[in-house]
Amino acid sequence: MKKINIGILGCGTVGTGVAKMLTEKKDLITSRVGAYLHLKQIADIDLALERDLKLDPGILIDDAGKIINDPEIDIIIETIGGEDIAKELILKAIDNGKHVVTANKALLANHGNAIFKAASVKGIDIAFEASVGGSIPIIKSLRESLAGNQIYSMAGILNGTCNYILSKISSDGIEFKDALGQAQAKGFAEADPTLDINGFDTAHKLAILTALAYGIEINLNDIYVEGISKITPLDIEFAREFGYSIKLLAISKNNGDSIEARIHPTMILFDNILSSVNGSLNAVTISGDAAGDVLLYGHGAGMMPTASAIISDIIDIARNLMAGIQRRIPPLSYQTGNIKKIPVLPIDEINTHYYFRFSAADQPGVLSKISGILGSYGISIKSVHQKGRKSKGPVPIVMLTHNAKEANMKKALSEISSLDFISDMPVIIRIEEEDKNDE
Amino acid sequence: MKKINIGILGCGTVGTGVAKMLTEKKDLITSRVGAYLHLKQIADIDLALERDLKLDPGILIDDAGKIINDPEIDIIIETIGGEDIAKELILKAIDNGKHVVTANKALLANHGNAIFKAASVKGIDIAFEASVGGSIPIIKSLRESLAGNQIYSMAGILNGTCNYILSKISSDGIEFKDALGQAQAKGFAEADPTLDINGFDTAHKLAILTALAYGIEINLNDIYVEGISKITPLDIEFAREFGYSIKLLAISKNNGDSIEARIHPTMILFDNILSSVNGSLNAVTISGDAAGDVLLYGHGAGMMPTASAIISDIIDIARNLMAGIQRRIPPLSYQTGNIKKIPVLPIDEINTHYYFRFSAADQPGVLSKISGILGSYGISIKSVHQKGRKSKGPVPIVMLTHNAKEANMKKALSEISSLDFISDMPVIIRIEEEDKNDE
Repeated sequence: MKKINIGILGCGTVGTGVAKMLTEKKDLITSRVGAYLHLKQIADIDLALERDLKLDPGILIDDAGKIINDPEIDIIIETIGGEDIAKELILKAIDNGKHVVTANKALLANHGNAIFKAASVKGIDIAFEASVGGSIPIIKSLRESLAGNQIYSMAGILNGTCNYILSKISSDGIEFKDALGQAQAKGFAEADPTLDINGFDTAHKLAILTALAYGIEINLNDIYVEGISKITPLDIEFAREFGYSIKLLAISKNNGDSIEARIHPTMILFDNILSSVNGSLNAVTISGDAAGDVLLYGHGAGMMPTASAIISDIIDIARNLMAGIQRRIPPLSYQTGNIKKIPVLPIDEINTHYYFRFSAADQPGVLSKISGILGSYGISIKSVHQKGRKSKGPVPIVMLTHNAKEANMKKALSEISSLDFISDMPVIIRIEEEDKNDE
Repeated sequence: MKKINIGILGCGTVGTGVAKMLTEKKDLITSRVGAYLHLKQIADIDLALERDLKLDPGILIDDAGKIINDPEIDIIIETIGGEDIAKELILKAIDNGKHVVTANKALLANHGNAIFKAASVKGIDIAFEASVGGSIPIIKSLRESLAGNQIYSMAGILNGTCNYILSKISSDGIEFKDALGQAQAKGFAEADPTLDINGFDTAHKLAILTALAYGIEINLNDIYVEGISKITPLDIEFAREFGYSIKLLAISKNNGDSIEARIHPTMILFDNILSSVNGSLNAVTISGDAAGDVLLYGHGAGMMPTASAIISDIIDIARNLMAGIQRRIPPLSYQTGNIKKIPVLPIDEINTHYYFRFSAADQPGVLSKISGILGSYGISIKSVHQKGRKSKGPVPIVMLTHNAKEANMKKALSEISSLDFISDMPVIIRIEEEDKNDE
């Protein structure tokens, strides 16, 4: 039986999961591929770390260079994470003619174009199913299953930490910082959760999905990013009264001559199935011209779900090797030369619906003044809701708007916040809602 | 640019959709594949039918034989439906060395093993993404994305007609026959809906998915099938009070030495995301040892969603042809020789939870008598609910059981239904629920 040699760079959580699957599920994988996928070597700087992994002596080494220079190794798995060392090793592996599987979304979002180009020059395969959505087959669905579709838009819950925190605020009525503490205690948030809660991890993933969906170059820098740290139980309660839940959504739309790509807390209707995605789970809705809406849902992170996606990439490449081919599908699914550049619309130019909460002294004329300002910017109000009056002091008032331009909303907000009866900075949350009769 | 010639057999709804995509989306498809996928010919017995389709003269013909015997045609698309003619044409096309794409679930469920064998002998590809779940990428996910997973179980809503009807009974409180009428009026049910509502269409799909998930031969005959025509608004209302919705689920489990494969109305908890799948939509949950639960959701039928899946199969085969290969992945994803035979557990042998409703005269001793009979068969009661007493006449009583064996449940039911204070035949509905501390 043919043997395909595999080397793994990085034996942390995900690398360990991949090594476990390759060694413990040898028979299953062989029965699929018709070849033995042999874990020849795995490199990590920390050889002393306790790992739940049985390896023959000499398999685990501390020299990644030995693996990428081993002429017998066919496929390199990069599970180091981070940008600099991972990038250097991947480019060297490509240069050595090795096929590469990576789960590294930060690397691909920042340097994917260069890496894909190098892979194209050397004629090798680079696979990255695990970079977005863990075990959810989102990359393959965009590259293959929806290949005959023009993709109109996508909306995703792509960060389990944020979704866990928002679910907790919603179910228990607790503040953000307490929900974060619970997420950390349960292992759903890192000790330093910055990259998750500020939305940047989600942005890395959206950068990759947007390129795949529309056949354009990866463009992380132009994605608008807003995190979840300002979401309060009060806003979630108001949202619920209007029939919405609040999720950190990655939103991407193809307007033809421009792309929208943005990450922000978003109100969605309860009957939107994304609203039923709770806890640390991930999901993506893809809207295609032929397929209609397709939703993919599952575990977006964790040792084994991520390893499951990496193994699917390894099996894909191994099936190519068994057929004697490579580059059957280009990384972004479009043929080189057919990758377009479409600019990302600045956030001020987007049109959407808004939820808008402010605290105002409970006095006559407040609503008339505020609606006057909104009206002067062409923003019309869909509904107004006032939370039970207190005996004294400011009361929270919520407005939902019809479709409005972000720049106008910001100008109106600035004027409103300078009114003397407004006590706090107003809160705005964008609403994602089909409303075809609205403009 | 290389040209790949395609012939379509059958120009009904789905065939028309495929022809539309091939002709109207030529540029998109070419930019993916690097070849021109040319619709050379399409055959249908009815040439006079009005179709929303612009074809050059001579493309639409009434002789399917001409297409399968055309040496220039590389890929045959079968969208005739039914078993006899479709089978004959597919086997001839395979014999002529043509790759085949089919959406025909009835054909594959009944004759898939023979067709796959013929394809293997001739070394051609047979693809069938559109046979289950319309545009939902369920076949590719099982064949490729989850290829490193041992699949434990699947649960699917695979028939849009049934899901529409059950959603309507649930939302509007109407009777089955009225919901069916509405489904027919809205085009969600055929004039003859038998194959849908009796569960057999769902069984065809489950037969295919079960073979793929566990690497076994297709086995339609041993699937237990129960339709939805006996579901009443009363049972849906009771279910709701207990926190459940009722769906027609296709359930498949791998117990190692036996398989469960069954179609029946099933109660699932509201927090199961399948419970949020409403209207004519389809969804499947797949539970894998590494991936955990993955859910795929979307349009399970209709012209363009089905065409979307067929086009993805065509692009897959075209990418193989461009690479000069075929049979990169065997039809069931496992190498020939690794396809197992595992028997299907008879329905009497399964263990599950039950919902159990009967009408009894409102007199002392009823519950004690019934729970005594259940207890004598080892069935323990989890909860009992009695619907508000009427002034006279029988009252509906509902019981939920802990895990019980189907055969015992049937025996108990038979004894209970012969009691003189039981007025109607009791209703049982199986409950699908994780309950690890239950046995």
